[in-house]
Amino acid sequence: MSNCIVAQSGGPTSVINATVAGVVKGNQMNPVYDHVYGGLNGIEGILAERFVDLTDMSEEENHILQQTPSSALGSCRYKLKRDNVEDFEKLLAIMDKHDIQTLFYIGGNDSMDTVAALSEYADKNGITDKQFIGCPKTVDNDLMHIDHCPGFASAAKFIATTALQTWLDVNVYPVSRQEVFILETMGRDAGWLAASACLSGHVDILVLPEQPFDKEVFLARVRECIEKTSKCYVVVSEGARYADGTYISAGESKNDLFGHAVLGGAGGALKAMILDSGAAGRAKVQDLASAQRSHATEQSLVDRQESYRLGLSAHMHSADKSFTGKMVALRRREGEAYDVEYFTIDADKVANYVKHFPTEWILPEYKGITEEGLAYLRPLIEGAPVIVYKDGLPAYVKPYYM
Amino acid sequence: MSNCIVAQSGGPTSVINATVAGVVKGNQMNPVYDHVYGGLNGIEGILAERFVDLTDMSEEENHILQQTPSSALGSCRYKLKRDNVEDFEKLLAIMDKHDIQTLFYIGGNDSMDTVAALSEYADKNGITDKQFIGCPKTVDNDLMHIDHCPGFASAAKFIATTALQTWLDVNVYPVSRQEVFILETMGRDAGWLAASACLSGHVDILVLPEQPFDKEVFLARVRECIEKTSKCYVVVSEGARYADGTYISAGESKNDLFGHAVLGGAGGALKAMILDSGAAGRAKVQDLASAQRSHATEQSLVDRQESYRLGLSAHMHSADKSFTGKMVALRRREGEAYDVEYFTIDADKVANYVKHFPTEWILPEYKGITEEGLAYLRPLIEGAPVIVYKDGLPAYVKPYYM
Repeated sequence: MSNCIVAQSGGPTSVINATVAGVVKGNQMNPVYDHVYGGLNGIEGILAERFVDLTDMSEEENHILQQTPSSALGSCRYKLKRDNVEDFEKLLAIMDKHDIQTLFYIGGNDSMDTVAALSEYADKNGITDKQFIGCPKTVDNDLMHIDHCPGFASAAKFIATTALQTWLDVNVYPVSRQEVFILETMGRDAGWLAASACLSGHVDILVLPEQPFDKEVFLARVRECIEKTSKCYVVVSEGARYADGTYISAGESKNDLFGHAVLGGAGGALKAMILDSGAAGRAKVQDLASAQRSHATEQSLVDRQESYRLGLSAHMHSADKSFTGKMVALRRREGEAYDVEYFTIDADKVANYVKHFPTEWILPEYKGITEEGLAYLRPLIEGAPVIVYKDGLPAYVKPYYM
Repeated sequence: MSNCIVAQSGGPTSVINATVAGVVKGNQMNPVYDHVYGGLNGIEGILAERFVDLTDMSEEENHILQQTPSSALGSCRYKLKRDNVEDFEKLLAIMDKHDIQTLFYIGGNDSMDTVAALSEYADKNGITDKQFIGCPKTVDNDLMHIDHCPGFASAAKFIATTALQTWLDVNVYPVSRQEVFILETMGRDAGWLAASACLSGHVDILVLPEQPFDKEVFLARVRECIEKTSKCYVVVSEGARYADGTYISAGESKNDLFGHAVLGGAGGALKAMILDSGAAGRAKVQDLASAQRSHATEQSLVDRQESYRLGLSAHMHSADKSFTGKMVALRRREGEAYDVEYFTIDADKVANYVKHFPTEWILPEYKGITEEGLAYLRPLIEGAPVIVYKDGLPAYVKPYYM
């Protein structure tokens, strides 16, 4: 037998480690490899031969790893360029040196491009003893061909929970007090995360990147809500933009004290518009920032299980030596009850594309999303895994890169 | 028998409703009153005779109420002024009209002042058939004479959990990438909430209101961390200030686009200092804003139970007709294992004072807090109540004021 290596790339999620746990457990149940190595800091660390041996991970460590947020193997933003033959050859030489047959790469668009580029290079150069397999992850849920991305559902659950809880918070004062609450979520190009706040049932205004921003329509909606109840709950995606593509946060960040775009963002921009126009007397912003992708104490059980199973699936498929340049994926089965089936797809069909939130699911005038959109989202946030605590805080695996 | 009324005031917490649930359950177990009314929006709503009847609340509703964040009865910022005799007389007349003997008021400093003022007024005017009883709550943990305030521990648990998770998040990239993460917490005058982040074990720099801010010392610490590991985890209280009392956020908010203090805050100010000085190449801010006081899905079990028991305790004490002008409280018992005993104290000894984070628990150069401080905090975040979910989101009681 030979060895395999698993690595992580891009922004972390709450369940990205469950896929690593799945690969490791898959090999323990059905040994295809002598060693399962973890590559530290993605391709960047593999090129520097920074590995750990995960082969004999204990059941307890595997379990805690699944509830540990962020990339336990570390991440990188390093992208293998197709014309950088030196990197390709170096990587293949390192794989040869350590008898590594298979690279499992967990990531988003860019990582799938890396998987595609490596398998193309191997193919072109007659290298048949290497496999490159992609495992999807991204909180943004913007990968093509997969029903939804591991990591998204846990972030969506945290966002919807926080929307519900802060909606309760913002309404406690009498109607004499006008107040707008603005929840800002991630999502530079796709509105999936912001839209998931609608699961709370209490979003008055939803601003997504998929819908060109019209300040007057937005302010009219704010006024309408304030007149009705004196309160208004707004959710905005960080990537909200005007019809010409300018981010709504752009105007603001040019004008800060030190000349960097350090302040505000989309939420801050909306707040400034509201106060400046007098649409409401008060407005506050909650930017969920990094917490939304790392709040693993409230993982969606569906998300964690699917992320783990995609790791098992990737390992299982790799037993076929001709399986390379593919991403493991899942699609929703037809029927009343939520269920998925696992399949595989060419990584180059996923690389460098963005799956937007469907415009037909967006209600006009920022009034939220359709029942169809809600029906898509609802089953994804179901279930809460039992979290292991230690001294009142979630137990976690010390990052392998430390 | 006569009736009682319970109301809530000031900023909400994750467990403030557990005290209401305790009062209601107390009267079901040991009926002292015919009716337990809920006063809507605090004193403001009581003066407008806006009540609900909570007497026969079901066991199920009582349970869900305890996991519902924010004030289910609504809140207010209305403060009874001691020279406003009209309000006092109106309130007493309303209590007479509805045969209400006892007012339970759940709140912080200002609410305890209201309790003290009302009982003084009654005493001076020979009114002996009315009782005014305070129940403590505040995420800020700044009430005197009580070991810790209901609401604080759940916020502290959420802050420490988020600190742990975002620390994992910020470290995933290779050492070639310098990064400072700044977590901003509530705490205008007291540093308890910010200090609780140290329970994560990973706070490099802690900036509290109790310690005058020195920019040069702070930046030197940032540089030291960056040199060592290229990463630096900072926690700052919103109330951090210079020796002359100016908030560190003040300089920044003067310079925004529309002339309101809409952007940034203490975290944004630190970020600007870091980038401007070149102490690190990147910095990002997570302001926990309203989420920290309303994230009831991760209540501390200790906190929820104590909040509930203080409601039971207030109800029980009220059976003594001479019991008025008091706040129910708890103190820590001596001994190895964490335990508290319940007692009562004059509300005027609590009103209008602030309990600061002890300066002897603060390490120099923003290096965090002492073992003694950690030992105080540790038991408070223990335990996680089982949360009831519905469709993937926490079940909650629809606010009574709606």
